[in-house]
Amino acid sequence: MDHTFAVIMAGGVGSRFWPTSRAKQPKQFLDLTGSGQTMINGTVERVARSIPLERIVVVTGRAIEEDAAKLLPELPRENILAEPVGRNTSACIGWAAVQIARRDPEAILAVMPSDHLVADQVQFQQKMQLAVEQARTGALVTFGVTPTAPRTGFGYLELGGETAPSVHRVERFVEKPDRPTAEQYLKAGNFVWNSGMFFFRASRILDEIGGQLPELKAGLDEIEGAIGTGDEAAVLDRVYPQLPEESIDYGIMEGASDILCVPVSFGWSDLGSWAAAYERSEKDDRANAIEGDAITVNAEGNLVRVGTEKLVALVGVRNLVVVDTGDALMICARENAQDVKKVVTTLKKTDRRDLL
Amino acid sequence: MDHTFAVIMAGGVGSRFWPTSRAKQPKQFLDLTGSGQTMINGTVERVARSIPLERIVVVTGRAIEEDAAKLLPELPRENILAEPVGRNTSACIGWAAVQIARRDPEAILAVMPSDHLVADQVQFQQKMQLAVEQARTGALVTFGVTPTAPRTGFGYLELGGETAPSVHRVERFVEKPDRPTAEQYLKAGNFVWNSGMFFFRASRILDEIGGQLPELKAGLDEIEGAIGTGDEAAVLDRVYPQLPEESIDYGIMEGASDILCVPVSFGWSDLGSWAAAYERSEKDDRANAIEGDAITVNAEGNLVRVGTEKLVALVGVRNLVVVDTGDALMICARENAQDVKKVVTTLKKTDRRDLL
Repeated sequence: MDHTFAVIMAGGVGSRFWPTSRAKQPKQFLDLTGSGQTMINGTVERVARSIPLERIVVVTGRAIEEDAAKLLPELPRENILAEPVGRNTSACIGWAAVQIARRDPEAILAVMPSDHLVADQVQFQQKMQLAVEQARTGALVTFGVTPTAPRTGFGYLELGGETAPSVHRVERFVEKPDRPTAEQYLKAGNFVWNSGMFFFRASRILDEIGGQLPELKAGLDEIEGAIGTGDEAAVLDRVYPQLPEESIDYGIMEGASDILCVPVSFGWSDLGSWAAAYERSEKDDRANAIEGDAITVNAEGNLVRVGTEKLVALVGVRNLVVVDTGDALMICARENAQDVKKVVTTLKKTDRRDLL
Repeated sequence: MDHTFAVIMAGGVGSRFWPTSRAKQPKQFLDLTGSGQTMINGTVERVARSIPLERIVVVTGRAIEEDAAKLLPELPRENILAEPVGRNTSACIGWAAVQIARRDPEAILAVMPSDHLVADQVQFQQKMQLAVEQARTGALVTFGVTPTAPRTGFGYLELGGETAPSVHRVERFVEKPDRPTAEQYLKAGNFVWNSGMFFFRASRILDEIGGQLPELKAGLDEIEGAIGTGDEAAVLDRVYPQLPEESIDYGIMEGASDILCVPVSFGWSDLGSWAAAYERSEKDDRANAIEGDAITVNAEGNLVRVGTEKLVALVGVRNLVVVDTGDALMICARENAQDVKKVVTTLKKTDRRDLL
């Protein structure tokens, strides 16, 4: 894995995990499955099996930069980059590419979110090795997760023929499908979930940005030009908030011609909601996932996370998510876990900053 | 209402209202419907429309005697009687009858629980007047609530012919029926709910106790004999815990020959569970009864009582009871509200006195 750098994206909040997730305590800083480890620590640990710590870079936000550094004392402090504001993944990855290419013009980036789960660490290592080898040739490479169900919450990639063992050409990116379409994809067998994990040379992605998002490239060039001039911080603060907001998927990948995909089946989850956290949590014989002091009477399938010292009693309730953070109590039907973000929307509208 | 004394029974805990109800904070000391008034204060206020405060007697337990006195500063302190231990309603009423008969041998008792609700105060006054008139003749009189639904949670009285306008002979007491039987009773039209409110001369009920529960009578006589001897407290402490435990319904009423019933329809509720508290509470346009700071997203039919300062968010949940007392959080399906007492049973078994 010579010249390979991990770029771990850790700028989000994860408002679907409110009230546990907050602006100052985002999803990636939490242990949502009772694993004993925060998601970002799990991600760094997973990557560190293949890439030395000096080449693991975390991109986060100003407001949580110090907390990220405290959570990750094993990383060199200069490997924690803080965006002045979040400008979506194209800007995040482009800026990381600029920084890393200055350290090593031959750098290959392994880009991934900080808040996903992987069950099979060995397969992850093997597939990352394969993807990096492909990226070394100059290709844009992505992990595509072999689907296990007709999920409608993910984008899909349609795969073409093999270009190397276990490496496929990507025919096209497709947006989140409806249920019948997702079922067709699952049956067809040549569709995989877009995992949001990418591999490419730093120089290649900067070229792509130059071709497809020239405004972003110009901003990144301006930021790069100021590095080492003493004016670096001021230029970053001025230019970064003006960068165009584009996701790497829509902004770059969908428009590129030569995308390769390494299909993976290493037990991936983007842990998109409390319902997913429930699925990954340890359960008792009535399928309740409860941490702490509790009494249940005919209660089944509930996830309980109570941060304060109290007894929780569940009587005759099913498939609930119950989260108590002391200042907020959230009770949600598991099947409506996606709607938790609507509570956050309401809190923003009513300017309840104490709870955001 | 000459010679009429109210006997308000306030010895219970009301464990179906856990975690709000506790040994030191029983149901009758709570405002469970958001009325702004505790149940016992509501009961005293209702009775005081007809009976002067000097003749309103509250029978409670040692552990909560002082708290009862604080809640009811309008009552003479000597009108608050404290049982050393609870020995069911026959002992409670018998002891009150002994105490009151010494003050007034002609006394008529209007006996009622401290934790029931009545909507129509004027009808209550009128019916009490009628019942007291009947009791004055020497009869045992009961309020029977005209049923509005085939409820299976109450005992019923089968009524015979009228002995006076709006006064019926009671043919028999019947225990809690099954659903088809309750439906027959409702259809038949001559069955009423046993309300637990009774009217009789003190001398008459003591005679009945002598005839039907001679062991109780002997104990009460021993307690009475010690009054004014300086030995009163010691005798009470020794004898009271040995009194037989019998309800007034089974121990006396079912075995008596001449019971009269005054049918009533004054909007009565024994407020038997959180589900009943929900029915009596004010609701929003999605039928949620919520006090305090809350955000709801597709939530309907929920009762929320949160005693601490926090935001409550309900997402996609229906017909729940949510009660947070700081040291305990109880979430219950409204249709399973009767099962809350099972939590209390578990707490007793595991000796969790901090939560009882």
